[in-house]
Parts: sequence; structure tokens; C-alpha cells
Amino acid sequence: MKGFITLLTDFGLKDGYVGAMKGVILSINPEVHIVDITHDVGSQCIFEAAFILYTTYSYFPRGSVHLVVVDPGVGTERRPIGISTKEYLFVGPDNGVFSFIFRNNRDAVMFELVNETYFGKMVSQTFHGRDIFAPVAAHLSLGIPLSEIGKEIRGCHTIQLPQPRVSEGILEGQVIHKDRFGNLITNVSYETFSNFVDNSPFMIKLGLFGTHVVRSAYAEAMPGELLAIFGSTGYLEISESMGDASVRLGMGVGGSVTIKKV
Amino acid sequence: MKGFITLLTDFGLKDGYVGAMKGVILSINPEVHIVDITHDVGSQCIFEAAFILYTTYSYFPRGSVHLVVVDPGVGTERRPIGISTKEYLFVGPDNGVFSFIFRNNRDAVMFELVNETYFGKMVSQTFHGRDIFAPVAAHLSLGIPLSEIGKEIRGCHTIQLPQPRVSEGILEGQVIHKDRFGNLITNVSYETFSNFVDNSPFMIKLGLFGTHVVRSAYAEAMPGELLAIFGSTGYLEISESMGDASVRLGMGVGGSVTIKKV
Amino acid sequence: MKGFITLLTDFGLKDGYVGAMKGVILSINPEVHIVDITHDVGSQCIFEAAFILYTTYSYFPRGSVHLVVVDPGVGTERRPIGISTKEYLFVGPDNGVFSFIFRNNRDAVMFELVNETYFGKMVSQTFHGRDIFAPVAAHLSLGIPLSEIGKEIRGCHTIQLPQPRVSEGILEGQVIHKDRFGNLITNVSYETFSNFVDNSPFMIKLGLFGTHVVRSAYAEAMPGELLAIFGSTGYLEISESMGDASVRLGMGVGGSVTIKKV
Repeated sequence: MKGFITLLTDFGLKDGYVGAMKGVILSINPEVHIVDITHDVGSQCIFEAAFILYTTYSYFPRGSVHLVVVDPGVGTERRPIGISTKEYLFVGPDNGVFSFIFRNNRDAVMFELVNETYFGKMVSQTFHGRDIFAPVAAHLSLGIPLSEIGKEIRGCHTIQLPQPRVSEGILEGQVIHKDRFGNLITNVSYETFSNFVDNSPFMIKLGLFGTHVVRSAYAEAMPGELLAIFGSTGYLEISESMGDASVRLGMGVGGSVTIKKV
Repeated sequence: MKGFITLLTDFGLKDGYVGAMKGVILSINPEVHIVDITHDVGSQCIFEAAFILYTTYSYFPRGSVHLVVVDPGVGTERRPIGISTKEYLFVGPDNGVFSFIFRNNRDAVMFELVNETYFGKMVSQTFHGRDIFAPVAAHLSLGIPLSEIGKEIRGCHTIQLPQPRVSEGILEGQVIHKDRFGNLITNVSYETFSNFVDNSPFMIKLGLFGTHVVRSAYAEAMPGELLAIFGSTGYLEISESMGDASVRLGMGVGGSVTIKKV
Repeated sequence: MKGFITLLTDFGLKDGYVGAMKGVILSINPEVHIVDITHDVGSQCIFEAAFILYTTYSYFPRGSVHLVVVDPGVGTERRPIGISTKEYLFVGPDNGVFSFIFRNNRDAVMFELVNETYFGKMVSQTFHGRDIFAPVAAHLSLGIPLSEIGKEIRGCHTIQLPQPRVSEGILEGQVIHKDRFGNLITNVSYETFSNFVDNSPFMIKLGLFGTHVVRSAYAEAMPGELLAIFGSTGYLEISESMGDASVRLGMGVGGSVTIKKV
């Protein structure tokens, strides 16, 4: 049976971990189409995994199974879970990697994965990606309902998603992701920004950089010039045209961005 | 409908950019086979993208759609284009990434992508890979003709492809690619070389290295020995047997190679 | 015809080498499912390739073709070979990359690839991955028998697989792989360990680290604590909970681990 399973892990590609997971999946459902989202999440960075999942999952065909294995607590009592929303299924550890999914899908139904019939034959305490999550995702892609593999639960572990806040007339957000180009992606959405600024003149500051303008394309700025832009994720980014804003400004995840009406 | 779309970008694999493009493609054509050529082109290196495309495109099945997104000018007036040759289709920005394709396919027909029906629903100014090129490639793989998506244009932007030249009895070429093994690949083709040398004894020099011999296999040289060889792309390479010529010689792209009859 | 070909190389993903191999395969068998195991084997590290193959091959569907190209001797007289076991087919250079496969499959039948009908049209001396191994793997995936492509041979090149040994009451093993998390994977299997220890108290030492306990999950130890565990490959690993044991201990492949009864 066809269908799609996406993979998002911190396993990197230099070992055989991802390969073993793919082998397990294809041994159960040889027809499924496996798509790598990334395997280069920072080692054990739950937030980064959650953010990347959030910016990609909705582009996939309805019914896709999204498998996330960033799992520092493997082998402890953290639960293996599955989630169903109106359009997608999700499988992974209950450690917060699905926090954005919960926030954006109030209809999400959560299950603890308990039916070992659908696990691998041998379950190690160190690699549930291969031994629990991959086989479960493969069975889901075959049409086995999540309710058959798991028992419904009420709540899941979520992590705090940093929210911008307004204090003394200043909107303060923070950098939540640095991409491969060195773009600094903040948690200030276009909506939050425009509600705050309300068509007045404004000043955006991040470290040593300040601007009164939001650009609509990277190349509107001169090569080497820093700029503010609403990027492809819908959030405010600080970027350098033809360069790396992160290196230029010496800033990374957690850096503070402020917006002030002037 | 089956078919092949290859991807060649500078997005890296640590973010969700490539994943989002794949999701978009599969949502339009769930049957298509997506093949990664590379996502590790140097950030915004148009020449490198053009060279890698040139050394790989012709190995794919007839009818494959080659999608290239190395796009520093995204959001400016640089045009999104599609190209058809006798055997392949190409989609990407009009910035020179297809320069080798034009040089090698005099029959290439060029189109500016204008029919927004075939674009994504929302087109950002920062990620045409996801919002224009991926949907267009997916529709092409479904058999929609390029003439339906674009309007024919006369010329495209090309970049200067450095050519070896002969001056004062010396053939001078340059390093145009450094591969992951540190092999220094020059723009001197076997044909150019043998026409010039014409069976006479010769001397090849690159930096501190000089040789009178062209090897036919890396391992013909002793481990640690530098050598000249016509590599798998058909161009003259300077390599180190079991080592990294680039590190050894302190040379990279742009380095000058000279060939002299002696 | 459907089927699976896995790829394991040291080509990296920044050049077009892997893309060219995939194009060649799909031009011969457009239906085959290509799965990357890894392309980030250390440059020309035959042992690492052999180890990663060993820890992944058996998870794939019966009949899969495993293609390994870590090939420092390309173009010399080292033979291109194919191997069949009860469940799988293997293709690659005869340089030891299949050493673990031979050790674990006494029924393996070996062939030298000699029938050039099944090679690419042009065979370079520098890239047999593209010109010999990829086309042969593709033909195997179409059901062409290995005996049609190769002639049976008696023995293959194998590399010494370091074995733990007991001397003066001490079991001494070594680190054979460092994974992306910095886990140090040794050649001491659970069986070897438990036969030696035989339910007595014991002391495991690696560099400055010593322990009397084998953990069953990474997170049983405190963050930052070093631990010994039998990992997902079935071998003894020295790890750091939420950290990188390799960096912490300054140890890598070849490091000595000792186990003593106390």
C-alpha cells in the first residue's frame, strides 16, 4: 500500500541508524514512499525538531505519517506516542517534539503506543527509532488504525514555545532558529508585528543592527547589507544579503529582537 | 503519473527547506520519484551548481525534470524559467545555473514561467523553490507542457564558463571544482589536452606540483603521491593518491594549471 | 520491476557522484527503490564501510541489492565482485568491505564481475561506482542472475576484524566505531562479555573512565555522566548521557577497553 512516511531525526547520516530505520519500514510496507525531512537536527535539540516539523509537515499529502526521532530519553519512562489530526499522523517520543502540532491542531487525538504486536521483534533500550517508531509508522502507512496500536491518552508533554511580549511599548521577540544561510528567524509573526506596529513608523533592533524598513526580498538590499524580512516561514527574519547574518552579528538562537514605534 | 524530478540546491539538509519542496511536489504528483543530486552546493554558488548539473543530468532517464534552486536573486526581477531539450526538462531561476546546458544543447527552448495557475497558492518573495519551482516541476512531471506554463523567450542569462587558452606555447586552464576527496578538477578536457600536446612530451604544473605523466587510475601512484589524471567528468584532475590534493597543495577553485610541451 | 538497491559510499553529498549513480540505476530499472544508507563513510575507510553495512543490511527486505562503493583501489587490478547469500545480493570492490558479510554468511557465493554487457557503455578508470557497480546492481534488481554477470570465484579479500582477547584474566577489546553522538562502540559483544564475566562483579575501563555497572538506557545515568551500555548494534558502548563520550574522554576508533573480574 502506497503512502508517505517522512523522517525527521538527529541521527546524522554518517552512521547506519537512518538506513536501519528505512530497512525496517520497507520490510513492513515495501510500497511506502519514505521522504527525509532532515537528519541533522542538533544532537538532542527537541525545540529545533519541533520547529522544523512545524514548518514542513503541512506541505505533505493528506494522510502522510510524520515520524520524529529526537529522543534523549530513550529507554526511560517517557512514553512512545502517536497523534492523529484531521490530515496527518505523527509518531515519536512524548518529549515535546510535537508541541507546535498541538498548538496548531486543537483536534489532535493522542495515543500511547502500547500494542507490542506492531513493534519490532526485539526492542532495544537505546534505539526505539528502529525498534518501535519505524515499525509503528510502517503499520500506520498500511492503514492499521492508531487506536489499534495505542491507547488514547489525555495530554502529552509539551515544551514552552517562546512567545513575543509587549512591555513598556516595546515588542520583544527572540531568535528561534538559525538556518543554513545564517538567517536569524525570530518568533515574531507577521500578524503580531503588524498588530503592534499598526502602520506607524518603527525601529527593529537585533544586536548591533537596526532598521526602519521591512524588505520584501533578500536581494532588495545591497550585497553585504543586513535587512529585516518576513521569510518563508511567516516569521520576521534578520538576514544579510548574499551573506550570513548570524556570523556578521555574532548572534544565534535565543538572541533578543526588539520592535519599537518611533 | 510516474517520472523523475531531480533536486539540486544550496539549501543544505539541516533545515526543512528541502522537505517542504518535496512535500509540495508529492502533493501534486504522488507517484513521482524524487532524486536528490545534492543540496550542499556552496551557499549561492551559481557556477558550482551549473557544473554539478552538467556532470550528472545526462545519466537520468529521458524525460526527467531537473530542478535547480540556487537563487541569490529570489524575489527580484530575475525570471523563473523552464527549458526543454530533446531529452530533458529543466526548471529554476534565470541566473546562469543552466549555462552548461545551453552550451551543450543548441536545441534548447526557453520559457519564462508566467502561468500562476501552476504555482503554489501563496508565493513568498523568499522561497520560490517551494512556491514556484517545485509546483512547476511537479506539473511538468504530470505531462503538462512547458508551453502551457511559460511563454517562450529568446535568450537566458548565462555565466562565463572559463575556457583554457593557449598563449606563448603554454596551455593554461584553471581549477573549476574541488570535490569531496580534494581532487582539483580543471577545465582542460581530454580533447583540448591531446590536441595541444599532440603526442609530444609535456609538463603539467599546478602550484608546486609538476608531472610529465598522466595516470589512468588514482592508485597507479604511490599513497601520498600527487598525480594528474582524466577523471570521471572527462576533465584533467590533479589528485593525491589516498590523500587530499587540495590540502596538500593549498589550492582550490580558480587555481591555474599550465601545460607546456617540453 | 520493483526491488531495493541500497547505497553505501564515501562520496559525500556535495558533488554529483551519488546523483550520477542514481541516474544510471534508474535509467536501467526505473521502478527500483533506491535507499541511501550513508554517503559519509570516512574517505576511503574500508573498515567503517564494512561495519556500517554489517549493522544495517539485515533490516532490508529479502532480495535487496546492497551496493557499496568505498574504493581506494579503483582502476587497479582489485576485482569488482558480487556476492549472493540466502537473502541478499551485494556488489562492490573486492577490498574487504564485505568482510563482516562473509563472517556471518558461511553460505555466501562470490563472483567476479566480468560480463561487460552489464556494465556502462564507457568504463572510466576512476569511477567504477557509476560505470560498473551501479549498472550491475540495477541489472541484478531486474532479476538478471549474478552467475550471468560474473564468474564464480573461491575467495575474496577480507580485512582483519579486530577480535577481543583474554589475557591474564583481562578481556581486552577495542573501539571500532564512533557514532555521530560520540558513542564509542567496541567489538565486545554481549555474548563475549557475559561469558567472560559469568555473573561475577566486574570493572570496565576505557581511558579515564571506569564502571562496575552496565546500564540499560542512556538516560539511566545523570546528564553528563559516562556509562557503559550494550547499544543497538549489540556491542558494548561507552557513552555520555546527553553528551559526547568521545570528546569527553579524548578517545576514538582503536581505543582499548578492558574488562576485569573484581
